[in-house]
Amino acid sequence: MTVDGSGFDTERPRPPAGDFNDLPAHVWPASAHRRADGSVAIGGVGLPELAAEYGTPLLVLDEADFRARCRAMAAAFGGAANVHYASKAFLCTTVARWVHEEGLHLDVASGGEMGVALAGGFPAADMTFHGNNKSPAELAGAVAAGVGRVVVDSFTEIDRLAAIAGEAGIVQDVLVRVTPGVEAHTHEFIATAHEDQKFGFSLASGDAEEACARVLAAGTLRLTGLHCHIGSQIVDPDGFILAAERILATVERLVARHGAGVAEDLATLDLGGGFGIAYLPGDTPLDVEALAAGILGAVAETADRLGIPAPTVAVEPGRSLIGPAMVTVYEVGTAKTVHVGEGLTRRYLSVDGGMSDNIRPALYGSAYDGRVVNRVVEGAPTPTRVVGKHCESGDILVDDAAYPDGVAEGDLLAIAATGAYCYAMASRYNMLTRPPVVAVREGEARALLRRETLSDLLSLESENPS
Amino acid sequence: MTVDGSGFDTERPRPPAGDFNDLPAHVWPASAHRRADGSVAIGGVGLPELAAEYGTPLLVLDEADFRARCRAMAAAFGGAANVHYASKAFLCTTVARWVHEEGLHLDVASGGEMGVALAGGFPAADMTFHGNNKSPAELAGAVAAGVGRVVVDSFTEIDRLAAIAGEAGIVQDVLVRVTPGVEAHTHEFIATAHEDQKFGFSLASGDAEEACARVLAAGTLRLTGLHCHIGSQIVDPDGFILAAERILATVERLVARHGAGVAEDLATLDLGGGFGIAYLPGDTPLDVEALAAGILGAVAETADRLGIPAPTVAVEPGRSLIGPAMVTVYEVGTAKTVHVGEGLTRRYLSVDGGMSDNIRPALYGSAYDGRVVNRVVEGAPTPTRVVGKHCESGDILVDDAAYPDGVAEGDLLAIAATGAYCYAMASRYNMLTRPPVVAVREGEARALLRRETLSDLLSLESENPS
Ligand SMILES: Cc1ncc(COP(=O)(O)O)c(C=O)c1O
Ligand SMILES: Cc1ncc(COP(=O)(O)O)c(C=O)c1O
Repeated sequence: MTVDGSGFDTERPRPPAGDFNDLPAHVWPASAHRRADGSVAIGGVGLPELAAEYGTPLLVLDEADFRARCRAMAAAFGGAANVHYASKAFLCTTVARWVHEEGLHLDVASGGEMGVALAGGFPAADMTFHGNNKSPAELAGAVAAGVGRVVVDSFTEIDRLAAIAGEAGIVQDVLVRVTPGVEAHTHEFIATAHEDQKFGFSLASGDAEEACARVLAAGTLRLTGLHCHIGSQIVDPDGFILAAERILATVERLVARHGAGVAEDLATLDLGGGFGIAYLPGDTPLDVEALAAGILGAVAETADRLGIPAPTVAVEPGRSLIGPAMVTVYEVGTAKTVHVGEGLTRRYLSVDGGMSDNIRPALYGSAYDGRVVNRVVEGAPTPTRVVGKHCESGDILVDDAAYPDGVAEGDLLAIAATGAYCYAMASRYNMLTRPPVVAVREGEARALLRRETLSDLLSLESENPS
Repeated sequence: MTVDGSGFDTERPRPPAGDFNDLPAHVWPASAHRRADGSVAIGGVGLPELAAEYGTPLLVLDEADFRARCRAMAAAFGGAANVHYASKAFLCTTVARWVHEEGLHLDVASGGEMGVALAGGFPAADMTFHGNNKSPAELAGAVAAGVGRVVVDSFTEIDRLAAIAGEAGIVQDVLVRVTPGVEAHTHEFIATAHEDQKFGFSLASGDAEEACARVLAAGTLRLTGLHCHIGSQIVDPDGFILAAERILATVERLVARHGAGVAEDLATLDLGGGFGIAYLPGDTPLDVEALAAGILGAVAETADRLGIPAPTVAVEPGRSLIGPAMVTVYEVGTAKTVHVGEGLTRRYLSVDGGMSDNIRPALYGSAYDGRVVNRVVEGAPTPTRVVGKHCESGDILVDDAAYPDGVAEGDLLAIAATGAYCYAMASRYNMLTRPPVVAVREGEARALLRRETLSDLLSLESENPS
């Protein structure tokens, strides 16, 4: 271990500190800025005022930022209907309504996601229903609601859905989910022949072609396209392009087997989600336009080369639409300096939430950008760990950062880019209650989801009702 | 990769298959057994009947097993009041009531845990309140409720609690949480001088002694003992013994500083939880009696050697009381065989829950024992992965096991030892609803917690009420 003059372990990588009072534009919501008094406002509303009104922890959603991301994605992919917001990233009725107002379609992956979206007035016809293990009840519910498309994921499911559609007296549009043997993450992708995962039908094994044949043979299903999802946090088009090329080669084989009509049927090529965002100042922000141009160009060219009609490319972004539009505001409850040996210390800032509202650092080792938002903070850069209040040593939100030693108990610490897979994966671990989600826009704030209370913690109890 | 004749990758470790239709007694609840028809009953109630009545997924809690574990722990540690059930592992009002009926005390780590326990009629005086970042409101609530002890965790908190107790006009009993530099897991422990974690006051740095001095100086706090928690899944007493020895050496130093009275004050030595359980047939079950005998003997001996009164040892087991008393029953929805390359295949069994009801495999890489419980299953051992229904490839419940290929869609698959940190950490990811928790005993079943529904998913919505 090497220790530099400032007490840092110089061997441990640590994100460049920059100015702690900045709000890097590619990480923070578009409207986030520091006001004259040094505090931060989003959507024209000060975070200290929101904390005072709603308490902490608190999720703040920049409506205009989210809508702008939806529009940019729609423009890049040639139409809002080609973009299906992946509701698993974050869903409430109001966000479902916004997505619909922007003309986007919706990816739902359970009866619950469909139910919440329907409660928000989202039209079932614009939904795509996903899942490796949809229950018969979910399939029947989706058919009854008139869901636009079901992405079939197993032979069992093709049979089940065909029967359910038959009983309902309808023909259900379906996509077939395939595994193209491409696994992508950030700037890299891995191409294999096979995939060891639960989703979809393998292209390499021939299962994907067999699944299409069975859908074509089922009188109550209509084949409308192929679907794949290759990874997450991807910022480079190459993995998508390889996946698309492999899928189109399969379409060519399907044409040889079933005739040209099958390529007309397979009018949609849904390449899933997984577009990366910037969590830290040093992260490369996703270039949606370049990504879309790369994908669309390659698909057109490949289809042309294979002599098949170019399918319409659809995508299912979740994180890249909602992730950067939200921040979580915590209050620092206690600050503690711990001797970690060899003359080193680490400052622990404990906030009033933690792994219950953001399990991603514990689950995936994810890094996050935190800033004090009630004032400008000065002080010497100090090795700092931001932890939650759970009874678990792994309850860490920011593992290792250089914060000024001026950060104090009572400060409001906001963490950026918490829109995706934080609230959606929230638990009540240690009986902490879920924070509220407050939308801000043009100086107005409104709660979309209220804070949970002790009554909510007791609402499932069958005995000892209080 | 080496492939043996049966199609297994022989380089990958795989738990010994044993007989798939057995229910190893050290892993499954005490009353679990196969009935004449091949199905499994717990607490005298058949799991297929429970699945039919309550649906799947479903948590089944063997009340007698839980109570027996409470009694055995109380006997081993010389009295029920020395055992504080760690409610973070699993809590509902009825379980709180059972814990009280058995005479145990309760470890709570938030206002929510305290609130649920109070709603179950648990006396505040028998509670110990934990946490690295209790809010002022939680401290005030604990004092107002008359909580037995507060485990103080930072200098800030000592000041806050002293002020709150003063305002309430009471003297609050406290324990001081210390970090003894011992980190234990299973058969091993690591001893260090310092600890890089958020909890407690370091023995090595002198912070622990300083914290005791401040508690002694605060007129509204009464020092009653020291507390530490050294790890999880521990099956060997040695780590506890080293921690106890280090703490008692600190007591000796405190006596030198404050006089013999301080050792009388520090009448409790709370060694926390972390006792291991058997998740897999090959795991060593915890020997509670040997563990307790080892710890109690060493504490008595050390105190004697140091010439200080031997403190009463208290413990805070969570997992070892509730973990083995519960199982989760799923239905297999789809079975899919995937080619994973080099002639190998893997069978994916998708069940109707997953990382929302048990995040431990994804979060900690935890292994679990699964068995079919509606019938006896035959067939060739086949490399199998049990996965959930979430839209995430990491949604795995059993990563790699040899199940008979006779396991089929529609079978009920139960996973053992899911009582601790499964429901407690449950989320609504993908808007899956939390499963019910049903207690069984002497042929009777009753729901302690009902299944969540779509209305629960919408209950926090402020707009678009349905
Ligand atoms: C099928 C599918 N589509 C879309 C998404 C959304 O991915 P992201 O939020 O990374 O864009 C996921 C994520 O798991 C997925 O599984
Ligand atoms: C302070 C404290 N006590 C007790 C426990 C319970 O541990 P276990 O369930 O492993 O016995 C924990 C677990 O995190 C803890 O942090």
